[in-house]
Amino acid sequence: MTTTTASTRLFHFIAGRAGPWIVERNICIFGDPLPWAPRLAVVADAPDGSPDPHVWQLRGITSNERYVTRNEKIALLAKQEGLGRAQATHAALIPIRKKAAWWAMTQDERRHILEEQSQHIAIGLKYLPAIARRLHHCRDLGGDQPFDFITWFEFAPADTGAFNELLAALRASPEWKYVDREVDIRLNQASGRPFRVFRRVARSGLE
Amino acid sequence: MTTTTASTRLFHFIAGRAGPWIVERNICIFGDPLPWAPRLAVVADAPDGSPDPHVWQLRGITSNERYVTRNEKIALLAKQEGLGRAQATHAALIPIRKKAAWWAMTQDERRHILEEQSQHIAIGLKYLPAIARRLHHCRDLGGDQPFDFITWFEFAPADTGAFNELLAALRASPEWKYVDREVDIRLNQASGRPFRVFRRVARSGLE
Repeated sequence: MTTTTASTRLFHFIAGRAGPWIVERNICIFGDPLPWAPRLAVVADAPDGSPDPHVWQLRGITSNERYVTRNEKIALLAKQEGLGRAQATHAALIPIRKKAAWWAMTQDERRHILEEQSQHIAIGLKYLPAIARRLHHCRDLGGDQPFDFITWFEFAPADTGAFNELLAALRASPEWKYVDREVDIRLNQASGRPFRVFRRVARSGLE
Repeated sequence: MTTTTASTRLFHFIAGRAGPWIVERNICIFGDPLPWAPRLAVVADAPDGSPDPHVWQLRGITSNERYVTRNEKIALLAKQEGLGRAQATHAALIPIRKKAAWWAMTQDERRHILEEQSQHIAIGLKYLPAIARRLHHCRDLGGDQPFDFITWFEFAPADTGAFNELLAALRASPEWKYVDREVDIRLNQASGRPFRVFRRVARSGLE
């Protein structure tokens, strides 16, 4: 059971000339940038990624929650909506790496900075259901991983300002002092939601 | 910096006819067994594992702590000793998988069962420094992983009884109701600590 879930938890983010998402902007916030590519595809269940030529490829795996408490989870579940909504034609891909000092902290220390000092969970809650998200972990995939996390966000064009507010609040928080690499890639679908196979793949990872 | 650390955090456990560790016993506690093999090697920094023939191979990655608080960490650091001690010629390899119900819980719920109900950290502390250990995570490596964790223990032959007590205490705890696969493999080195290269490799992963 666990093994079946594991394979459907791994997602590939493939930037190149193909893919349903049009890249609008690719801005490096901290550290090394990612090269420009005009298109992006998000693919689940492709152990070797894309056989097609690509400019770069990142991998991330959805996992159990590391900080959220049951009361916070109840509040999140009451407000959040899934990926793949027809009106959510804009997206953001934000890969992040945190400093060694973050990972050297114990669980209570990281939770204290993430929520009691930075309100990371409360800030996300404030922008639900407008901003849907899925968090992917990279740090424990093995091999040389350029990022620790990849977050994928989806929202309607009218909520772009709200999304920028959300990011500004997080980036101003004490937690962000521990970020040493961050790239902010904005995407859209010119002609609404993409073809069926992609919608199925995107929804299969929502748990 | 993170990427360099990541590659030295991944360990391969290779069972077959070669390797410095002699397998004494291979007992299945819950779920499917692992096949018998007479020898075991623990290898770091080998992305593709062993090119030699082997019976089975498991991978695990050391990572940040998920439950330990700063006060508990101070107590552990004050008592614990590393792997690779000359007198610690006995070892155990215990891969474990937990049920989906465990992973569906929030962080506070898992911590409550692991420590407040089961004293997992306190039980480990009680057997320090006799029983040295290193925890490896498998669940977020990607691909089909047969286990969620692999723990490697080392102790002197005279501490075998203490080690069995430690396991009995954990297996009787509420946390173990969430274990659905566990194999208990006991090993020893007939002629003391193995060759130098293995000692170097084992020590490099202690952080």
